[in-house]
Amino acid sequence: MEMCDGINTGWVLLGAALVFFMQAGFALCEAGFTRAKNVGNILMKNLMDLSAGTPAFWLVGFGLMFGAGGKFLGSFDPGIRGDYSAILPAGVPLWAYAIFQTVFCATSATIVSGAMAERTKFGAYLLYSLCISLLVYPISGRWVWGGGWLSELGFHDFAGSTAVHMVGGVCALVGAAVLGPRLGKYDKNGKPRAILGHNLTLAALGVFILWFAWFGFNGCSTVGLDSDELCETAGLVFFNTNLSPACACVVALIVTWIRYKKPDVSITYNAALAGLVGITAGCDAVDPIGAAVIGIVCGFLVVFSVEFFDKIAKIDDPVGAVSVHGVCGAVGTLFVGLFATGTSTPKGLLYGGGLGLLKVQAVGVGSVAAYVAIVSAIIFLTIKATIGLRASREEELTGLDLSEHGLLTAYAGFAMQPRTITDEEIASQAPVVVTGDAPVAEAVPVKRVPSFQERGEPKLTKIEIICKESRFEVLKAKLAEIGITGMTVSHVLGCGAQKGKPEYYRGVQVEVNLLPKVQVDVVVAKVPVRDVIETAKKVLYTGHIGDGKIFVYDVENVVKVRTGEEGWDALQDEDA
Amino acid sequence: MEMCDGINTGWVLLGAALVFFMQAGFALCEAGFTRAKNVGNILMKNLMDLSAGTPAFWLVGFGLMFGAGGKFLGSFDPGIRGDYSAILPAGVPLWAYAIFQTVFCATSATIVSGAMAERTKFGAYLLYSLCISLLVYPISGRWVWGGGWLSELGFHDFAGSTAVHMVGGVCALVGAAVLGPRLGKYDKNGKPRAILGHNLTLAALGVFILWFAWFGFNGCSTVGLDSDELCETAGLVFFNTNLSPACACVVALIVTWIRYKKPDVSITYNAALAGLVGITAGCDAVDPIGAAVIGIVCGFLVVFSVEFFDKIAKIDDPVGAVSVHGVCGAVGTLFVGLFATGTSTPKGLLYGGGLGLLKVQAVGVGSVAAYVAIVSAIIFLTIKATIGLRASREEELTGLDLSEHGLLTAYAGFAMQPRTITDEEIASQAPVVVTGDAPVAEAVPVKRVPSFQERGEPKLTKIEIICKESRFEVLKAKLAEIGITGMTVSHVLGCGAQKGKPEYYRGVQVEVNLLPKVQVDVVVAKVPVRDVIETAKKVLYTGHIGDGKIFVYDVENVVKVRTGEEGWDALQDEDA
Amino acid sequence: MEMCDGINTGWVLLGAALVFFMQAGFALCEAGFTRAKNVGNILMKNLMDLSAGTPAFWLVGFGLMFGAGGKFLGSFDPGIRGDYSAILPAGVPLWAYAIFQTVFCATSATIVSGAMAERTKFGAYLLYSLCISLLVYPISGRWVWGGGWLSELGFHDFAGSTAVHMVGGVCALVGAAVLGPRLGKYDKNGKPRAILGHNLTLAALGVFILWFAWFGFNGCSTVGLDSDELCETAGLVFFNTNLSPACACVVALIVTWIRYKKPDVSITYNAALAGLVGITAGCDAVDPIGAAVIGIVCGFLVVFSVEFFDKIAKIDDPVGAVSVHGVCGAVGTLFVGLFATGTSTPKGLLYGGGLGLLKVQAVGVGSVAAYVAIVSAIIFLTIKATIGLRASREEELTGLDLSEHGLLTAYAGFAMQPRTITDEEIASQAPVVVTGDAPVAEAVPVKRVPSFQERGEPKLTKIEIICKESRFEVLKAKLAEIGITGMTVSHVLGCGAQKGKPEYYRGVQVEVNLLPKVQVDVVVAKVPVRDVIETAKKVLYTGHIGDGKIFVYDVENVVKVRTGEEGWDALQDEDA
Repeated sequence: MEMCDGINTGWVLLGAALVFFMQAGFALCEAGFTRAKNVGNILMKNLMDLSAGTPAFWLVGFGLMFGAGGKFLGSFDPGIRGDYSAILPAGVPLWAYAIFQTVFCATSATIVSGAMAERTKFGAYLLYSLCISLLVYPISGRWVWGGGWLSELGFHDFAGSTAVHMVGGVCALVGAAVLGPRLGKYDKNGKPRAILGHNLTLAALGVFILWFAWFGFNGCSTVGLDSDELCETAGLVFFNTNLSPACACVVALIVTWIRYKKPDVSITYNAALAGLVGITAGCDAVDPIGAAVIGIVCGFLVVFSVEFFDKIAKIDDPVGAVSVHGVCGAVGTLFVGLFATGTSTPKGLLYGGGLGLLKVQAVGVGSVAAYVAIVSAIIFLTIKATIGLRASREEELTGLDLSEHGLLTAYAGFAMQPRTITDEEIASQAPVVVTGDAPVAEAVPVKRVPSFQERGEPKLTKIEIICKESRFEVLKAKLAEIGITGMTVSHVLGCGAQKGKPEYYRGVQVEVNLLPKVQVDVVVAKVPVRDVIETAKKVLYTGHIGDGKIFVYDVENVVKVRTGEEGWDALQDEDA
Repeated sequence: MEMCDGINTGWVLLGAALVFFMQAGFALCEAGFTRAKNVGNILMKNLMDLSAGTPAFWLVGFGLMFGAGGKFLGSFDPGIRGDYSAILPAGVPLWAYAIFQTVFCATSATIVSGAMAERTKFGAYLLYSLCISLLVYPISGRWVWGGGWLSELGFHDFAGSTAVHMVGGVCALVGAAVLGPRLGKYDKNGKPRAILGHNLTLAALGVFILWFAWFGFNGCSTVGLDSDELCETAGLVFFNTNLSPACACVVALIVTWIRYKKPDVSITYNAALAGLVGITAGCDAVDPIGAAVIGIVCGFLVVFSVEFFDKIAKIDDPVGAVSVHGVCGAVGTLFVGLFATGTSTPKGLLYGGGLGLLKVQAVGVGSVAAYVAIVSAIIFLTIKATIGLRASREEELTGLDLSEHGLLTAYAGFAMQPRTITDEEIASQAPVVVTGDAPVAEAVPVKRVPSFQERGEPKLTKIEIICKESRFEVLKAKLAEIGITGMTVSHVLGCGAQKGKPEYYRGVQVEVNLLPKVQVDVVVAKVPVRDVIETAKKVLYTGHIGDGKIFVYDVENVVKVRTGEEGWDALQDEDA
Repeated sequence: MEMCDGINTGWVLLGAALVFFMQAGFALCEAGFTRAKNVGNILMKNLMDLSAGTPAFWLVGFGLMFGAGGKFLGSFDPGIRGDYSAILPAGVPLWAYAIFQTVFCATSATIVSGAMAERTKFGAYLLYSLCISLLVYPISGRWVWGGGWLSELGFHDFAGSTAVHMVGGVCALVGAAVLGPRLGKYDKNGKPRAILGHNLTLAALGVFILWFAWFGFNGCSTVGLDSDELCETAGLVFFNTNLSPACACVVALIVTWIRYKKPDVSITYNAALAGLVGITAGCDAVDPIGAAVIGIVCGFLVVFSVEFFDKIAKIDDPVGAVSVHGVCGAVGTLFVGLFATGTSTPKGLLYGGGLGLLKVQAVGVGSVAAYVAIVSAIIFLTIKATIGLRASREEELTGLDLSEHGLLTAYAGFAMQPRTITDEEIASQAPVVVTGDAPVAEAVPVKRVPSFQERGEPKLTKIEIICKESRFEVLKAKLAEIGITGMTVSHVLGCGAQKGKPEYYRGVQVEVNLLPKVQVDVVVAKVPVRDVIETAKKVLYTGHIGDGKIFVYDVENVVKVRTGEEGWDALQDEDA
């Protein structure tokens, strides 16, 4: 007789792989929504909570959650060597189930990282992350999924709105509160400032990866497919797992469009996660109408929750983890009590089942939230009091990449890191022999070199034009018409007291008084300075603030390297 | 008796997850092949066509496509509540099939986004995208897959070369034509300009994700695995789904290498998608030889099709969606009529089956193309005439991120966004007390401060060297040899009338007259200016245009902050 | 009677899709760990080794590996048309098995790319890559998996630590050695220089994708799930495939923390791959304790191996492919001889099985390594002697994107590529009519324009402040207090002889004497220059090297575009 079932085992293992992949999604979301100077640190945190959590769950967590024991706690079973046949899903071998549970645990741990981003000491993060995998998650997990008191009570949390996401979200809330906001997040009046993420494309990819992987998170939580019921449940779970976040995005789009005048990219992507978290508890128990409603509610909630924590509670949560995982995890779990159709659970309130299920759901959410809040507060405060939780002011300003990992930049080249060269490249140059001057090593008498201009030759003038990027190409074309083809262009920031139209990022008005500009440097001899100025004025003038400025400087000399020509001659041709 | 089959259900659900993941691939492709200033908008479009399309397909599309009805149209069945037992694949429950179909619909919708990138009004995009999911796709889908007249005729489109990709491609063509090209895409003679994508790495990742997900798109379209035939088909489909794009890439590599002198990165990646689209219709019906030929043809076609639309038809399609999905979708479908081996369809022309299948394929391609062209033209023209389809000139120049979403940049930090600071950081500074001067608040009389030089001290001179990046390190080393260790370096663009060697991007010659340069600023007192000039000339000289220029300026004073030294003294040591 | 089994077929096909996805992972890892100027070339290599390898394996490789033949070589069977029923896994059809094997072959080929990055001629790469898929991999693969002499001997390499990874790693070693190091990698004393990767976020995503896909690589190598034994094996394989890399990361974190004072991001991510490679041979044969030990050993090894090849052997391997795939592949295979528990193989040494298995493992590793080293050396040296293996010095300095693919940049916009404009945009400007001057076309007499200052008006002065980025915001605030609100800000590199604290990148000390600075340009008339200098000094002073410098220049004129005001007047307000 076969004890294992290929389809059930394959289904659980597929789920494990997909849920593992959520690590990539979380890493990208957190990295993208924060600043470039901390991205190496963020990548390390997301790698290490999984990497430290895996052995921790193998050595301690799994036993605490599923081992023989009571309603509140399993047993200490290092290496998962006990007999788990009683709790294994039908036809699924132990190690398949163990890896499936391991990656769920890692998900819970990694949620916290985002809320504590950009200011947490790396060592402290590792320690606390270990605690989640060793203690926090397995114990509440025992209650919900390990045969503990909440599951006996009939608490329904199919794939972990509460057991995984709210646990992570509550830890995130406590952690962010204990840490305090990032430097500069609030002004002296407590008004939040927008701190823009450094790569929304990667953050969006992170969300798509999470949504994709969530089909494994929720869908494969049937832990089997070998019966009509399991197949039907899995199909429904997949459908709901797509419909809820879709509805959440539509709602967040509309709400932010109304509230901030324009549809907000970052919040709408957050809403996808909110809808996914929200449907996780009841994806098997509600029909698509319920799933749509849960998505709508979560899409609405996430906008206001992000604003609430940012503006009212003043908890600095760079990625919105508390709102997405904490708030929507709790709400999604409660909504099972309203929308359960009565197939896999008692009926919910709106389907004629009365308040019974809703009450049980509330007890589950409340007890898990309270437990996690207390334990995580103890952990964070203990770390804070001992090794310290927060990076120093200087480390935070510098960025954790450099201060914690010695990483100069995660984006070499973009940060203008110079290239390396060979020694022979230097040596291959003709030795520098400067004619007619004393060796440089000894102090040379200061010799006043008469400027080109002082020698009575035509004046050379540099004209520096600061203008909007959008006018640059026209300016270039028009300067060419008056005979100027050589110029040096650079991107600068122009600073003035003017304000642009207010724009919002995640509900917070963005202060901008440094605006991207282009600086065009032109050096002229033949072409009259006045011509350049008038041309530039004509091209740049719109009558609005920010049209730009033109600065004029004296130039002593110009040398063209290719020909060795100097002064006037050096400017008489075409190449830069 | 079991009605559902675990392996079939699991297979369909795996396919749904993978096809969902194509959203990420399309988003990255479109984002990578376009400019950074529109990337937030692109991410929103790709999220929202799925998110709006999902409820639309649930409420309307699925019923139109699969509901009871006729050969041309199903029925209105909001919420998919009817009886679909007649059309469900064996052993697959309704919701599993519904989610599988939903993500196919979303794929079709998202294809259009790329062709209309960087200039479409966001609201208009949402509206039109909804129309695709509500009306366009479900109706032609009915014909092909919903038991409609084309399927009765024997039209073979296994996974959707026509039903999904060509539908998307034709909409894309119509949309891009109605919109018109991006500002600056064509010069006054109608010659196209290359507009480079901002992140080819992400575009390439997008292609890899699409290829990966295509195994689900094609492979899981067997909608079952519970028989020898289905297993064998699935194996063949997987093999063909890899072989065709591989061959397409090889061909595009060779063709672009010959045509543009160098193998083109972006077109070769496009060719992978072309090969995938091409094999989608017949992946179950042709053998690997047929798949290889289809791939070869599509790899060849995509190069010339991209050029054709860009240069001849002057349809501005930033990502090549029309060529990849429209042209290769149609051709791939037709080729089933040539290469079908006769297992799942009648034999194709080259396998001795005569013209029969080829004619049917042509009817299918032609009728669907005509239908989609007409309906999408009505939709786009209606939108254009009412709410407007295209962003304003100013919005397009600014970028849709800012104008449509209030997003200053999707890449904060790279765009030199300044960091935020705390108020106490400012307050913590010693108050500025400027000795010996009147308070600044009141108008101070203009006091001519004599320059350092005017006070009879040694002259200070700034030497500004503009050179190639590749010479910088040698220059630095050689300047150190003559005693100069402090300098300020920045990346600039040097502009001259010279042209570099022509390079091609997607078949279009790239105009470059702004070349990346390094600007090195050195201020000297002790070291003679002439030494610096001669050293720089020696290092930088190659005799070719673009060797660089050297500018010399007078400096009035230098202050070293750490020591407070000024003038000559401030330059007598080592630190920057 | 059914010959195929749905669950086995589905499992193998799922594996094929996941192993295919490794291409994306490898591409991102290589791209991220190298420089931006070569990224297009890297993307092409990773696409083309798959794309050329696929038809090559179909036409030649598969037959050589699995066709009828002897212990050393199969047969030439173009198009896989022979009878393979004897070697097909139970219930898996030919094409499903063929695609599974194809993507394994592609993995082996793609490993080499990373070690040879940034300096290999593209044509040479293609040629050599073809050889791997045609000859190298299939022959050693025959020995290990195709029923050859090593499999007869009892050599155990479950999913390819040796057959895939070590084969790739040895080719990588030979290739990198024949090529020589990148220009500038070693100084004249042979001391390695750190060459930072351009995008660690993408490299990290690559690692996550690889880890995710490795569940298919190892897990689906059971090539079936239709028995208790297969299910149990698959479960164990999944568990081990996660535990080993997790342990490797923990160890590498600790080792780098101790050795380089700070935990190294890039090496720790490498360690994940090291742990994955190491467990691949024995993932079915060892228990989790063995997997943990293998992970620990590989995590330790990879740190020292990367250092060894970099510092002692002086083989320049930009991504650590030799250490990860070669060294850990060999070690992982050998460790099966120590830790095999005796289920799928004889017992290993530590489980009481004596030296038997260990010896066989050593023979397998040694013979495959020797074979691959010899054949790949012949291939590389032949290519070197004929078409040439290495890009020219100039091509390498320029970057392979431009020189090999005509790609100006893979990151347009970030590289300050200017936007395109329309002709009418230029035309729409009022024609430039410069009053009172001769047309520019003819040589105008040089007219000395008296500077603003020479006309006896108040002096205009430019003050250029070079400072640390972290002080900028305070400086801005304090300048505002003395009445300066307009300024131009740019990011520059400050160069001095000072050294920062040594930081390490992949074990190599990073030389930094170009530090990111901010340049703030202020032009004043009313506000005394001295005030600006004193304010800046107060804000910037810390007493440490690198506090910054202040330069003072004379300005001849300033024009404000919006108002047309010049000189003093142009500076009397607020906007930039």
